[in-house]
This record gives sequence, structure tokens and C-alpha cells, in this order.
Amino acid sequence: MNDRLQAIRNKMAGLNLQGMIIAKPENIRYLTNIEAEGILLITRKENVFITDGRYMEYVSSIITPFDEIVVDDQKNISKDEYENFFLFCENVGFEEGYLTYKNYKEYIRKFKINNFVEAEEILTLLRMIKDDKEIADIKRACEITDNCFNMLKKYIKPGLTEKQIARKIHDYYIENSEGEAFETIVASGENSSKPHAVPTDRIIKENDIITIDMGCKINGYCSDMTRTVFVGNPQDRQIAVYNLVLENQKKVLNEIRDGANIKTITKSVETDFNINGHSLIHALGHGVGLEIHEDPIINLKNDVPLKENMVITNEPGIYIAGDFGVRIEDTVLVTKKGAIALTESEKECIII
Amino acid sequence: MNDRLQAIRNKMAGLNLQGMIIAKPENIRYLTNIEAEGILLITRKENVFITDGRYMEYVSSIITPFDEIVVDDQKNISKDEYENFFLFCENVGFEEGYLTYKNYKEYIRKFKINNFVEAEEILTLLRMIKDDKEIADIKRACEITDNCFNMLKKYIKPGLTEKQIARKIHDYYIENSEGEAFETIVASGENSSKPHAVPTDRIIKENDIITIDMGCKINGYCSDMTRTVFVGNPQDRQIAVYNLVLENQKKVLNEIRDGANIKTITKSVETDFNINGHSLIHALGHGVGLEIHEDPIINLKNDVPLKENMVITNEPGIYIAGDFGVRIEDTVLVTKKGAIALTESEKECIII
Repeated sequence: MNDRLQAIRNKMAGLNLQGMIIAKPENIRYLTNIEAEGILLITRKENVFITDGRYMEYVSSIITPFDEIVVDDQKNISKDEYENFFLFCENVGFEEGYLTYKNYKEYIRKFKINNFVEAEEILTLLRMIKDDKEIADIKRACEITDNCFNMLKKYIKPGLTEKQIARKIHDYYIENSEGEAFETIVASGENSSKPHAVPTDRIIKENDIITIDMGCKINGYCSDMTRTVFVGNPQDRQIAVYNLVLENQKKVLNEIRDGANIKTITKSVETDFNINGHSLIHALGHGVGLEIHEDPIINLKNDVPLKENMVITNEPGIYIAGDFGVRIEDTVLVTKKGAIALTESEKECIII
Repeated sequence: MNDRLQAIRNKMAGLNLQGMIIAKPENIRYLTNIEAEGILLITRKENVFITDGRYMEYVSSIITPFDEIVVDDQKNISKDEYENFFLFCENVGFEEGYLTYKNYKEYIRKFKINNFVEAEEILTLLRMIKDDKEIADIKRACEITDNCFNMLKKYIKPGLTEKQIARKIHDYYIENSEGEAFETIVASGENSSKPHAVPTDRIIKENDIITIDMGCKINGYCSDMTRTVFVGNPQDRQIAVYNLVLENQKKVLNEIRDGANIKTITKSVETDFNINGHSLIHALGHGVGLEIHEDPIINLKNDVPLKENMVITNEPGIYIAGDFGVRIEDTVLVTKKGAIALTESEKECIII
């Protein structure tokens, strides 16, 4: 059986779970490499992937005997067989943050489950700590993002629209990776004051400020980077905000290491923003992996230490409604000795 | 208050619901035009959209006084205020097919809900029947898809890869619409035997069969069309399967009308496939709207009549593992008199 399936079985034993239903696509991919609709059952005896006719051929071509995964077409599974998967299981785990209430009720009935237990944490804890292969994939996605940004510094000029710049990024990622990890943000002028702006037909002007939030995927693993750049001359109040964000971003990079407390790190940024008359209106960061946003969330509510081989973003931002915004973000690897920024594009005030 | 919010309030009254929490983005967009993270509360007194700092500026710019929607930043809502939204409400509805089990439990606690009642059907029933504006948007998305297919007939030739063709479709949609409604499928040769194939680097050869499943979005509304084409000479066994699929697709188009039973229509295709030694391995179709797959599902389990102004797909397909597959799909409007195919590309055996 592969290491990850073995690891989840060990964790399940520790929590007195005799079975588990895994439905979240990223968790299924993490454990089995399968990218298809279906659910993975961890039963006492077997690992079973239940899918349908559309995917039988593909799934059978992906798994190896070593995986020890049985593939079933749902249309061939009888009522009795469903009820037998978890026979004599006292507790069966499920992903409470993924399963809908409807599926929750359906699975209890269909599989005749005694105690259906919230157990998603088993997978989030496993996935939070990246292995060498995962780190290598994220690193590669970050390198491609740096390269894309280098290209952009030469490409961006007054007259282009936000959509044209976003399109250029999209095309670069299609050529060089598995494509965008999320919808690219290109927010210029007053649009930059919206942290989640969607690219518009607004035309870049001389002396505009532009926030670009971008990332791609390699083997399913994401990168995430934001830079705020100036086309021509920044205004003094923009420079003041830029420097405040940048100082905090660098400070956080210095503080990140195995054992550093997430709440403390976030609090320090919030305090400094407040002292300077601004607010921290979104999380300071988030885990990155098979999902662009995954655990751990980096905010005030998460009073836990960072751990070695987590990959997280460090992305303080300040937004002045109707005026402009600044966000600077890197994808960062947590090590025992400190943080390693995996996105390495320049971040001192960038004028293009 | 806008008509849709009024309609949902009327339906709620009929089900003895005094409040409702709407969390599914497409439902929020349908009712309010808002495209932002957050939840919509329908309370006795008000409609409240709870969001966060990232979206306050955007949401306030979208809604009009006529909508009668109050916008709240979650960080300004106290524990007491949360508990007061549904005060004196006996039953509060929620979307059981969208809300995760975790959110289900969280909302009961946070809003101090007495009876949290499965009520998603209110919205799926409303959304299944399209109004003139929605039909116009879908029609436009279908027209663009037809135009894209016309372009493809001239573009496709031996030597191109599946990915290059998919890219061409992507680019066409970016130029002419809000982009792809789903990940385009371009499956050639033996890849066409997988109904959900992902475009690969496989190079198109002389005499290849190619299945192309494509759609775009206009004002959020989707189109969905599949054509299976031949590059050069089809083989006799391919023509036999093609004609069987095409006959059934046309037969279904003739049967679709207000009042026609979904199960009966599907059964007739399954029977004809079986008589000819094949199987119907996926649904015959699905509703199309703000989501590419929405209600009603067109399969054997759905023993209900079609209704006027539903928009559904008609997409029979036959897949011969490891060999080839054929699927022919149109987006179709249900009327009192019959079906109107909104995608109109030719579907007699297409040789390019």
C-alpha cells in the first residue's frame, strides 16, 4: 500500500475509526493519484474507489497493484454490498468541511453507518506538511511565476487593459505549466483598492499603480505571488503605504520558522498597521498545496505554531477604498532555521 | 424588492419557513446579482448580505435601493446580533446540497436556529424555469459556440495536438464571451472512448475521430455542445455507432416538450442502445443555466415531466473502451410545442 494510505490508516487507528469515506477530490488525489469523480472508502479490509462508467477506463489505467486500491463501478454495487463495506465498524470518519449535509445523510443511510465521525483533520494535518516531491513541485510553480513576472515587467505599458495583462499571464502559464492556480487579479488605479478585483477593460495610464496576484500549477501543486507595481511616478502617499506593507512583509518573513506562533505573527502586523492608521482586512496568509487555499490559515484566530515543511503565503495588504491598494505576497517554505521564499521576484518599489 | 427575492419569500411562506440562509454563490447571484464571498439571510424583516472587508466596496457598488438588501461586514456583527437575525423564527431553511456538515453545525450555533430545514428545492425549482433574459443569455452563449465550431471546422487538421485545439477554443471564447463554461474536452482517436477525457499532447492523425465538448458563458449563463467529427475517412463501425447516437439524439429532440416525462425519454434511448449491443453509461442530459450542470438531471431516476422554459442538454453517447467514442450534444429550450435547439451546428457525419 502506498505511504499516504498507510499513514491515514495509522491516524485512523489512533482515533478509533474503523473506516473512512473520503470524498474531497484533492484528498483523493493526494492519497491515490486519481483525478476522477468518485469516493474513496477506507474499510477494514480494503481501499475501494467507487466511480462510474465515465471514469472506469481512466482510473484502471492510473492505479498500480502496489496502491492496493479496488475500483468499483457504482452501477454494479448492490444495496447489500453498500451495507457491507463498513460492517462491524463502530466509527466511520468523514470530511465535515467538504461533505454536504445532503451527502452526509445519504451516506449514513446507504452505508448503514453507526457513528459517522468528523475526521477531516486527519487529512488536513497530513497535507499541511509537505514532502520533498511536493516542495519540488511548488518550487517549480514558483519559479515559473517569477519568470512570468519578469516577462510582465517588460510587457506592461500604458494603453494596455487589465484584461490584456491578465490574458498575457494566462497564456504564459498555459505554455509553461498546467495553467493558472486561480483567477489572476490585475487591478489598476482605484481598482487596486479591492483585494479581490476581477480584471476589467480599464486602460493602464501613466503613473498608475497595479496590483497583480498570480499563480500556476505543476503536478497539481500551486504557486501564489502578488506584486504591486508603479507605471511611472508613484505618489508620496502611495510610497508611504507601499513601504509600510513591504516592511511588514519582510518582518513576517524573518519571523516565520518552525515553532513560531501564527497568531503572534499576525498580531504584530495588525498592530503596526493600526498604529499607522490602517487595518489588516484579510488573512495574512494561507497554506498552499494541491489547493490554492489550504490549512493553515494565517490569522489572529489560529493560535498554533508553524511547523517545518509547511508551505504558506505571506501577504499583508492595505486598501484605501476608492483610492488605491498595495499587497505584496510570496509563497514561503517553513524550515527549522527560518523561512525560504519560494517566489523570489524583486519587491522593492518596482517602477515600470 | 426585486422579483426573485419576492418569489423566494412567497415560496418560503408556503413551506412555513420564517427565515432562510443562502450560501451557494449561484443562488446568491441569481437573487441579488452579487458575485462575492458571503451569505444571504432572508429574515422576517430584511434581506442581509454578510460579507467581509475584501468585498464591502464592490458589493455596495452593485446593489440598488430597489433590491432592499442590507450589506454587513462580518467583523462588525456581534454575537447578540447574530442570534437576533432569526429571533422568533420557528423554521429556517438552508441549502442541504451546498452547505457542508461543518457549516450546517456552525450556523445552527451562531444564529441560534431552532429548526434548520432542508429547503434547497425552493431555489432549484425557481432556477429551473428560465425567464426571457436568462434564455437570451443562454441563446447568445450558444450562438458563440456555433460560431466557434464553424471556425474549428476550418482550423482542425492532422498535425495539431488536442491541447492546441482546446487552446484555440479557449482563446475564441476569451475574445467573444466571458470564457469557457467548463474545461473543454478535445478527445481524439482512442481518447474519445473516455467521456471526460482531458486534452493531451496526442497529435491528430489522418482518419482520426475527435469528440469536442465545449461551451462558454454570457452574463454568467452557460452553453454546452458536443460534436464528434472525422478527419478524413470514418470506418464503417464508427459510422454505425455515429448514426445510432445521432438517430437517438434526433429522436429525443422530437420528444422534448412541456409535459414529456424525463424517465420515459431516457428509457427509450437506453433500450435502443441495448438492442444494438451498447449501453447508456452517463445521464442523457442536464439543466443548463448559471451552472453548467443544474437541475433537472435527465436520467432514468428522474420520473418527472419537463416544463416550459427549462433549458437542458440532449447528449446521448456511446463509448467503446480503448477504441473510440461518439457523443452528440445540443443545448435545448423546452416549449409547449416542442424543443428548440439553441446550439445549431450541423450534426450529420462531419468530415473535415
